[in-house]
Amino acid sequence: MKSVKIGIAGLGTVGSGVAKILIENEENLYNRIGFKLELKRIATLSKSKLALDSINGLIVDDINSLFNDDIDIVVETMGGINTARDFIETALRNKKGVVTANKDLLARYGSDMIRIAREYRSELAFEASVAGGIPIIRVLKDGLASDDIISIRGIVNGTANFILSRMLSEKQEFKDALRFAQDEGFSEQNPSYDVDGIDSAHKAVIIALVAFGFTAKFSNVWYEGIRDITYQDLKMTYNLGYKVKLVATVRKSGNKIDMRVHPVMIAKDEFLAKTDGVYNAITVKGSYSGKTTYIGKGAGSLPTATSIVADLIQMAKRMRYGGFGTVFPSGFANLNCFELEKRENLKLRYYLRFGVSDKPGALSTITGILGKNNISIHSMLQIGRNGGGFVPLIMMTHTANENAILRSIREIDLLNIIVKPTLLIRIMDNE
Amino acid sequence: MKSVKIGIAGLGTVGSGVAKILIENEENLYNRIGFKLELKRIATLSKSKLALDSINGLIVDDINSLFNDDIDIVVETMGGINTARDFIETALRNKKGVVTANKDLLARYGSDMIRIAREYRSELAFEASVAGGIPIIRVLKDGLASDDIISIRGIVNGTANFILSRMLSEKQEFKDALRFAQDEGFSEQNPSYDVDGIDSAHKAVIIALVAFGFTAKFSNVWYEGIRDITYQDLKMTYNLGYKVKLVATVRKSGNKIDMRVHPVMIAKDEFLAKTDGVYNAITVKGSYSGKTTYIGKGAGSLPTATSIVADLIQMAKRMRYGGFGTVFPSGFANLNCFELEKRENLKLRYYLRFGVSDKPGALSTITGILGKNNISIHSMLQIGRNGGGFVPLIMMTHTANENAILRSIREIDLLNIIVKPTLLIRIMDNE
Repeated sequence: MKSVKIGIAGLGTVGSGVAKILIENEENLYNRIGFKLELKRIATLSKSKLALDSINGLIVDDINSLFNDDIDIVVETMGGINTARDFIETALRNKKGVVTANKDLLARYGSDMIRIAREYRSELAFEASVAGGIPIIRVLKDGLASDDIISIRGIVNGTANFILSRMLSEKQEFKDALRFAQDEGFSEQNPSYDVDGIDSAHKAVIIALVAFGFTAKFSNVWYEGIRDITYQDLKMTYNLGYKVKLVATVRKSGNKIDMRVHPVMIAKDEFLAKTDGVYNAITVKGSYSGKTTYIGKGAGSLPTATSIVADLIQMAKRMRYGGFGTVFPSGFANLNCFELEKRENLKLRYYLRFGVSDKPGALSTITGILGKNNISIHSMLQIGRNGGGFVPLIMMTHTANENAILRSIREIDLLNIIVKPTLLIRIMDNE
Repeated sequence: MKSVKIGIAGLGTVGSGVAKILIENEENLYNRIGFKLELKRIATLSKSKLALDSINGLIVDDINSLFNDDIDIVVETMGGINTARDFIETALRNKKGVVTANKDLLARYGSDMIRIAREYRSELAFEASVAGGIPIIRVLKDGLASDDIISIRGIVNGTANFILSRMLSEKQEFKDALRFAQDEGFSEQNPSYDVDGIDSAHKAVIIALVAFGFTAKFSNVWYEGIRDITYQDLKMTYNLGYKVKLVATVRKSGNKIDMRVHPVMIAKDEFLAKTDGVYNAITVKGSYSGKTTYIGKGAGSLPTATSIVADLIQMAKRMRYGGFGTVFPSGFANLNCFELEKRENLKLRYYLRFGVSDKPGALSTITGILGKNNISIHSMLQIGRNGGGFVPLIMMTHTANENAILRSIREIDLLNIIVKPTLLIRIMDNE
């Protein structure tokens, strides 16, 4: 049977991983699919990055040559937004299959690109864009396609998870754990994408698309990071039976989608809480399947490339055995018209750490403000002076309204008994 | 677009779960696939089991009516071997798509049925046969199809895992934990399938088929159960940093497949070790993706039915959008010609518990026999008399040959200083 011809745009870590798998694992792939996946051409401007001699003859610098008739499927591993978007849209209009891991681009323009793929009966696949080597997109699109999915909660940024894990195990503060992660190569020099929740928010948008057919505007997504969390918070919550993780939540409630990224306290017996270090983990709750959890390394050249080549295999099989151009890139034949849940409607449980000066009356003032806002306290803990001139006062609330909590904190932080801004961590419920 | 018509054979717990999902989740399914999955007919002899009024009009007692032209895909949920096999093979010859969860049948005749499906250009799918609601078959066939898979290790029997977990947490012996599991409805009155490893071995055969295209003869598969494990073994190994789990191993080494089911000591930080209770967990190690782990409930009407309906969706999409009859049921275009690894070639690490009478010289006699067989001791522990008139002597070995271990135990168990047969637990390495 005729081979399917592959072109790669961009030869960074992921692109060269794809080339490596296509070449090294050729025999296995042939056995699986019954024809050859042939790496035909690689367009790149950075010829210095070659890792494999065998691809030398395949390198060109003209990206437009990937639109030629001798290429069936293109892999976009350039990254960035504008050039990558042009490239993908042109390829789709030329009826090429397109595989990408560009989560930033997908979070911003994914639903537009999906519309183009449908219009031109081409295909767009992006398994590698979420959680590297874990085939979570395929699980949501196919494996749990039969289910009525209720929620997806994921640790989808390995760097943030590494930092939080290390802070707890090594009794470090955020800055020290971040520096260590940077020294070890687990974090970029500009860590903002990872530790401020931006990268996780990109992935939340993609998850909402394949789990619910929901097309969110990225600028509407609420995300918070982990910079304000201290070792003491991690230790306190651990002693209370929880671990703190940076979690992307995508949850259906009626016709609303509750989508957000922020640190979450998770009961220790949940698999998300048991996932430490650079690992990613995603728990899906379905009406019928119950809770299933998917765990693996979320990044790295080869895990990510594995997912890209898995997409290539699926597309190539449809090209040769029938069905190419009929797969809905989002998993949905009809994109649904869910609405984004408003933040002020959320009802959650909260961990609050107040930095109080050691004066009488502070407790009654704070609880007074909380009570006025209908927030009731589940438990409370006061720790002795810790040298910083203030006393951490820790409270866990019963279920309360997000807006009421934020309003209370604003009011409390204006009190002159407050020495340090209040820290809030939301607690994961069972939904 | 024309609906795809479904027939169900057998209306036990799983069959009625499938009916429930097809009816209750109809709108979601339509949104996903763009046409209707229509439950057309249910063939069953046990009309008493109806859970849903809405299916009353669909019930017939003639199973052959499912081969009529008005049915596109049949679901086999009768169980058993002979009738189910006849039914599936006839359906495939009639070019029906067939979905089954019958692991016993698949383990014995799966490769025959796959050959028939290929010959008649029909399709056979069996996601639900391994690990209920976890889409592990799809992960192995599609999600990791690009990878060079090295090994799969799974806790694939929830009952055995529940019993082992309860023994450790409640300080119970096997018999008491089993009785509790039976009382709670987690175990059959005849628990042999679950606790003697038979059910796990069925699943190992299916895993080997989809991970490596390896068609094993079930009678050649080596399996052992958990009946001989005591609370003391679980506690001892826990204190040494391990949990004991009943694990199905399927591992490639050269052109050999190492396939076996037996209790395994697993380091506590592995996700398999962190999986307690009725949960299933499967860790796949790939050359490129590294280790990924999949966790969920392994049984139950609705989780299993979720996987069956996911198979229905995939098949129905290929029927309507193109490609039906082109999917390789095993995941492989060419079934490979691996050989089964011989047990005597294995090299593993072992936990040995000798029941020694409290006489001088016992230790040197035992270590003498082990030494003669080239087995070297990593660590050793002797516990004081426990009232049973014998002293448990515990050793962990360095890597040793399976045959040498078995030979040594046979010789040791004949000594008159041995009061209780030796127990052996194998230790999971990192491959």
